[in-house]
Amino acid sequence: MEGDPTLRLRVFDLNCWAIRYLSKRRQERVQLIGDVLRREGFDLVLLQEVWSERDYSDLKAKLGGCYPFSHYFRSGVIGSGLCVFSRFPILDTLLYQYSLNGYPYMLQHGDWFCGKSVGLVPAWGGHGRFALPSCQLHAEYCREKDAYLPHRLVQAWELAQFIRHTSKAADVVLLGGDLNMHPEDVGIRLLRGWTGLRDAFAEATRFEGCEDGCTLVPKNCFTVKSELLPFPLGIRIDYILYKAVSSFTVKCEELKTTTGTAPGMDIPFSDHEAVMATLCIRRQGQAADATLGTSEPMLADVVTEARTEVGVGLRAAQRQRYSTGRMAVLALLLLLVQAAAALGALAGLAAGQPFPKLSFSLLAFLAIGVLLLATGLHLFHTIEVKMLQGTEEQMRMALRALQERP
Amino acid sequence: MEGDPTLRLRVFDLNCWAIRYLSKRRQERVQLIGDVLRREGFDLVLLQEVWSERDYSDLKAKLGGCYPFSHYFRSGVIGSGLCVFSRFPILDTLLYQYSLNGYPYMLQHGDWFCGKSVGLVPAWGGHGRFALPSCQLHAEYCREKDAYLPHRLVQAWELAQFIRHTSKAADVVLLGGDLNMHPEDVGIRLLRGWTGLRDAFAEATRFEGCEDGCTLVPKNCFTVKSELLPFPLGIRIDYILYKAVSSFTVKCEELKTTTGTAPGMDIPFSDHEAVMATLCIRRQGQAADATLGTSEPMLADVVTEARTEVGVGLRAAQRQRYSTGRMAVLALLLLLVQAAAALGALAGLAAGQPFPKLSFSLLAFLAIGVLLLATGLHLFHTIEVKMLQGTEEQMRMALRALQERP
Repeated sequence: MEGDPTLRLRVFDLNCWAIRYLSKRRQERVQLIGDVLRREGFDLVLLQEVWSERDYSDLKAKLGGCYPFSHYFRSGVIGSGLCVFSRFPILDTLLYQYSLNGYPYMLQHGDWFCGKSVGLVPAWGGHGRFALPSCQLHAEYCREKDAYLPHRLVQAWELAQFIRHTSKAADVVLLGGDLNMHPEDVGIRLLRGWTGLRDAFAEATRFEGCEDGCTLVPKNCFTVKSELLPFPLGIRIDYILYKAVSSFTVKCEELKTTTGTAPGMDIPFSDHEAVMATLCIRRQGQAADATLGTSEPMLADVVTEARTEVGVGLRAAQRQRYSTGRMAVLALLLLLVQAAAALGALAGLAAGQPFPKLSFSLLAFLAIGVLLLATGLHLFHTIEVKMLQGTEEQMRMALRALQERP
Repeated sequence: MEGDPTLRLRVFDLNCWAIRYLSKRRQERVQLIGDVLRREGFDLVLLQEVWSERDYSDLKAKLGGCYPFSHYFRSGVIGSGLCVFSRFPILDTLLYQYSLNGYPYMLQHGDWFCGKSVGLVPAWGGHGRFALPSCQLHAEYCREKDAYLPHRLVQAWELAQFIRHTSKAADVVLLGGDLNMHPEDVGIRLLRGWTGLRDAFAEATRFEGCEDGCTLVPKNCFTVKSELLPFPLGIRIDYILYKAVSSFTVKCEELKTTTGTAPGMDIPFSDHEAVMATLCIRRQGQAADATLGTSEPMLADVVTEARTEVGVGLRAAQRQRYSTGRMAVLALLLLLVQAAAALGALAGLAAGQPFPKLSFSLLAFLAIGVLLLATGLHLFHTIEVKMLQGTEEQMRMALRALQERP
């Protein structure tokens, strides 16, 4: 950025919804995404939910010419689904897996198996360094009774902390991803307030796309219409956020979203709309101060609100840890009683009719099954309690720091 | 550090071996550690293996006067065991849990349950910022046939990457911990080379303590003598590493270790020796260059060596993923055959003598048990494969970057 003082950066962000065997018309859509990315020649492309490594390899082969640098983040059983394509050299990568991400036994939601993470890609563009976190947070399955809210808040907090601690080496931080939160949700306010990241939609000089910048809209043929009933315009859950760290300024000149179909086509890229931003990055004379994104008393309110929700989750996790522990103990007791009865029968001490062997064995196997399952769940909820406690403690520290500032 | 140009920093690092019900004379030792820390008044104290939160609370209550700031990192089922006491304000904390940490079914080794992590504590000392990662890596149970080497290398790599990405905001980075690696091991060379951290033992102007700076020595009454047979002097696996990031210089004036017993006592603090460093931190006129710790061709050799070991681990993990998958499929087939036989018997199609009910049910339960266990292990080894692949890929990128440098 030394010769030309201004860099115009075009960023593309999309949740691709590319789940093998499950997502509709996946291959066709991945091909379409590749075609458009090649044609449009963005500078940076942040994709989520590319669950199949083969899809990534296909995209990489197709896009190698215009995006010579790319990275796919592996994690969890299925993967993180995150990948990045860049016109600028990727210097390095770092993956941070959230400590909580739903429950393994909620198979129908599947988030636990994905190993949801934030992937950091530092890239060298012109004469400035970008930090490019790309991420996806836990999905919201029911807004009214959102059992995953504490997990999503832990993730939002960890994401914010990760960005705060890793962004210092960069000139510009650019976060793109499906945050699974509405703009006014406490998690987004926490993330923006605690990191100082600005919302490209709110800051854009020009906007073109779905009303209110929505990225999950009823007119997209792949969205589940019933889920969007309370939101006739749709919801905005995919974001491009940014901030300048050192002596740079960033302005969002233009923000676009697709509007239910891919440009000039009759099918959409995905069930989400793509978000495309044109950012204008300029070197300033003096270094910008590292500031929080929200005034401190307001930020303290946001952290307090988030901490309260984490506390609610903590108490629920403690109850579950207790009840699974109790279940394990009961199963163990049953097994011990059975063992005593069996030993008694073997020693000829049993009075009267012994149990029928079949029922006895079935009961023993059932008790072993319950014992193993309950122990596994107890361990899982113990981890959950620890992580929620840890986050609550960190938020308490943050509040104290905010209150102690002059 | 503006008024007085030199800060003399006294750092204490110890693996406390404080496992409830298992570690010998735990309470007595924790009390002793607290007494000595209070008496000696270090500036920063990094402790590992404080597995019980009550032990941490006791230490915190005792040390509140001289170390007003402290933090305990929660993670995993048991915890991370990491805590930090500081005379300087702790600004914030960040926990990074390693993506691989042994196997849940290796109950006798227990590492998996600990959620081993690196905890970062940025602290404000004088007029400079410290980044204080404190960590413990996977233990080495058998040096000749070290099945955990690939996991430990993934951890060393993640630790190095974490330090590289989070240290930019600091003036001085100070890593203390039980790295479970000998000084010449590839993991230590990788960590030092890739981060530029220097070894306080190697750099110290004065040294006092066990020969060769060993921290697990035969004369400590809690060490397992048979494990140390090949090393008559003991081994050095606990480290204080440091580097200056911005316009500071750091020198290690003095390094001390305890020598089998706590100073002036007849029992040791732990089965490990404590490491105590006095560092001299001075502000320089000009900013230091961010350099790697080893010359680039040598570093490339180290990364290649580490990558080879990770590759060995990857192939082992792939074999285990395959064999657990095959076991799950066989169990499923057995269940299907049984279901078909049962249905046949119900429909009256079975010719001749049916199976005895008891054996039939036992077999079915066995098959279900094997199916569940094998599926769980298969998922676990799938994650292992993904993380090893991810690390191998990152190392490949690092090698390319090293080779492309002018």
